[in-house]
Amino acid sequence: MCGKYIVSKSPKASSVSPVPQATDNGHQPQPIINLDHGDPTMYESYWKEVGQKYSVTIPVFQSLSYFANMKNLCWFLEPKLEEEIKTLHKNVGNAITENRHIIVGTGSSQLILAALYALSDSLNDPNPVSVVSAAPYYSSYPEITDFLRSQLYKWSGDARCFDKDGPYIEMVTSPNNPDGVIRKPVVNRAQGMVVHDLAYYWPQYTAITSPADHDIMLFTVSKCTGHAGSRIGWALVRDENIAKKMVKFIEINTIGVSKEAQLRAANILEIISLSCQKQRPRDLDNFFEHSHQLMAERWKKLRNAVKNNQLFYVPKFPNHYCNFTNEFTETYPGFAWIKCKEGVDCEKLFREHKILTRSGKRFGGDAEYVRISMLSRDEEFDLFVQRLSTIHGTGNQN
Amino acid sequence: MCGKYIVSKSPKASSVSPVPQATDNGHQPQPIINLDHGDPTMYESYWKEVGQKYSVTIPVFQSLSYFANMKNLCWFLEPKLEEEIKTLHKNVGNAITENRHIIVGTGSSQLILAALYALSDSLNDPNPVSVVSAAPYYSSYPEITDFLRSQLYKWSGDARCFDKDGPYIEMVTSPNNPDGVIRKPVVNRAQGMVVHDLAYYWPQYTAITSPADHDIMLFTVSKCTGHAGSRIGWALVRDENIAKKMVKFIEINTIGVSKEAQLRAANILEIISLSCQKQRPRDLDNFFEHSHQLMAERWKKLRNAVKNNQLFYVPKFPNHYCNFTNEFTETYPGFAWIKCKEGVDCEKLFREHKILTRSGKRFGGDAEYVRISMLSRDEEFDLFVQRLSTIHGTGNQN
Repeated sequence: MCGKYIVSKSPKASSVSPVPQATDNGHQPQPIINLDHGDPTMYESYWKEVGQKYSVTIPVFQSLSYFANMKNLCWFLEPKLEEEIKTLHKNVGNAITENRHIIVGTGSSQLILAALYALSDSLNDPNPVSVVSAAPYYSSYPEITDFLRSQLYKWSGDARCFDKDGPYIEMVTSPNNPDGVIRKPVVNRAQGMVVHDLAYYWPQYTAITSPADHDIMLFTVSKCTGHAGSRIGWALVRDENIAKKMVKFIEINTIGVSKEAQLRAANILEIISLSCQKQRPRDLDNFFEHSHQLMAERWKKLRNAVKNNQLFYVPKFPNHYCNFTNEFTETYPGFAWIKCKEGVDCEKLFREHKILTRSGKRFGGDAEYVRISMLSRDEEFDLFVQRLSTIHGTGNQN
Repeated sequence: MCGKYIVSKSPKASSVSPVPQATDNGHQPQPIINLDHGDPTMYESYWKEVGQKYSVTIPVFQSLSYFANMKNLCWFLEPKLEEEIKTLHKNVGNAITENRHIIVGTGSSQLILAALYALSDSLNDPNPVSVVSAAPYYSSYPEITDFLRSQLYKWSGDARCFDKDGPYIEMVTSPNNPDGVIRKPVVNRAQGMVVHDLAYYWPQYTAITSPADHDIMLFTVSKCTGHAGSRIGWALVRDENIAKKMVKFIEINTIGVSKEAQLRAANILEIISLSCQKQRPRDLDNFFEHSHQLMAERWKKLRNAVKNNQLFYVPKFPNHYCNFTNEFTETYPGFAWIKCKEGVDCEKLFREHKILTRSGKRFGGDAEYVRISMLSRDEEFDLFVQRLSTIHGTGNQN
């Protein structure tokens, strides 16, 4: 595999591009099921149950200023959001926040760019620093790194194939997107800088085995609570100079982060923390237990749909003890990384059945793989597993 | 002047950097007045009058998805915001929205970057395209353009000194930041691409003489309504391919724009449009008339404070007929571009009097100039003009 990697082009654009039209050949046309992107609408039903009483109201005269807290290194971070981030990590036990700078971003995409800028600009090197990640890696990393043709950093592909001397940046996503595997850095050389993307390190997806304790850790409400539309992520950063440069990136890029989104995110994190308490309100289900249960059911349905099928391989995950739920649990990733039998272009096969997925090629992998979102609404997910169970042959070979 | 321009370093950072401490020498220490940045808190008093009944409430189950309107080229734009942007431009008469794509951004900073990306990437040129603006230009342009050391575009300074052949991008801010002057492009060559930043083309600042009709026009709620904390701007773009590339930039950069901020901005624009109607609610002052009046009063106070003073020169502006207010009006810029007498470092002089301003050098101009925000809260503005009226001598010469 080494030496071969794909620079994806406009992954998000493809998810909203025209899709194959269902034709009417006498039968009712099959609806298209779009599981290409990871839109976390699954969580909508929980929040509808929670209902109106937890709505956020923002008076028209609030938050006019650019500034949220001029005394903070991250001057645009709402104090209430900072507090709720710390409380939630403490309740869940998935990351250390002590002696860390908290930096809010417009989603974790902006924080990935902020980290690349901060780490590379600090090197003062006329040559761009290499950015790598072990394949299969998050399909947006190549394009995020290269789209502006920066001379600060450049995408250098699969971390397992990286053999250059000197400084480098390794992106470590754990659990990994697309394949759900718990990961550690793979290059491990003296001048390495590591960014830990922990978007999925929450109890609904995987066992919380210990509080993460890395130099740069990224989180996002999108995958934690399902509020992708808010565009709120945060970084926990150990080094003050790196934190300052990340803040500077966000200043120049967007002069801070929407206050409305921050205030609502704070409110939502507060509800989740409240839902984790033993003395929670009677009408408030424990968010993580509820979501964990839902993910477990979905993965069971997925495995059932392919169990007598020689065409698809669905990965298995080991059991680990979760310190949050106090029980052993499997990993239930937000995406299924499905392998088709040898020689089959898996994305094409699904497309023929009007299921849109993202090809393994986009993740630095093979066309035999696809990534499928497990986070769609119930109706869409059920339609997907029902249709999946009817697919036995293949109309294409590589 | 040509051949000389300054690449500003971290303008925003400086606005939150440690400021000179007032010392207690027996008297009450003078408070520091920070008018370096253009934080539009002046509008807070209007919105407090408007009060609670126009608050925005966002239910906890709303806007989970990344998508706002999958049928729209700008798939993350809330339909309600699109509608209110069109209505407001129609009411004010300051821009043509027909046959334009509307693109929402995380403030207009993100849209400036999106425009630079879209225009330069479309050239398919291995060399970076020059980005210019006539001095004095917005102090952030050099840093916005160069901070990632992109090979797509590079800052090339004062547009009046630009003499290279081939394609270029000219930033035209009108009314101009820092000096309030109504501007047109100055280079005017065949391969030129122009981005019109019209952040201040609203009736409180200047006469609306005709609806702007350019290829790329940028607006922001920060300077129109005062809600800088929301980080909402929008672009009106004629060419579909350029619009698509701007959308792609925002996809890769932040995967869209906060839905909460968009929904609140839509609500605020709706209130402003309502306030402009003859049949408006009795407790709702016409926003633009109210703000125009306030700006006129502030400029009068400023001129009074320096009228018998040989040290400062405050620019004058011609009268123009405003199609919105149906009367002749001066321009009342959001910033005062003040010139000190020859040889005086104006920023240093003000700093000695504990007034923080932004030096003319940061705008590609001279140290004899400073930019002073006219948009602070009433108390701060009044304190400023009072202190200004007491400054007659100077402790420094260049």
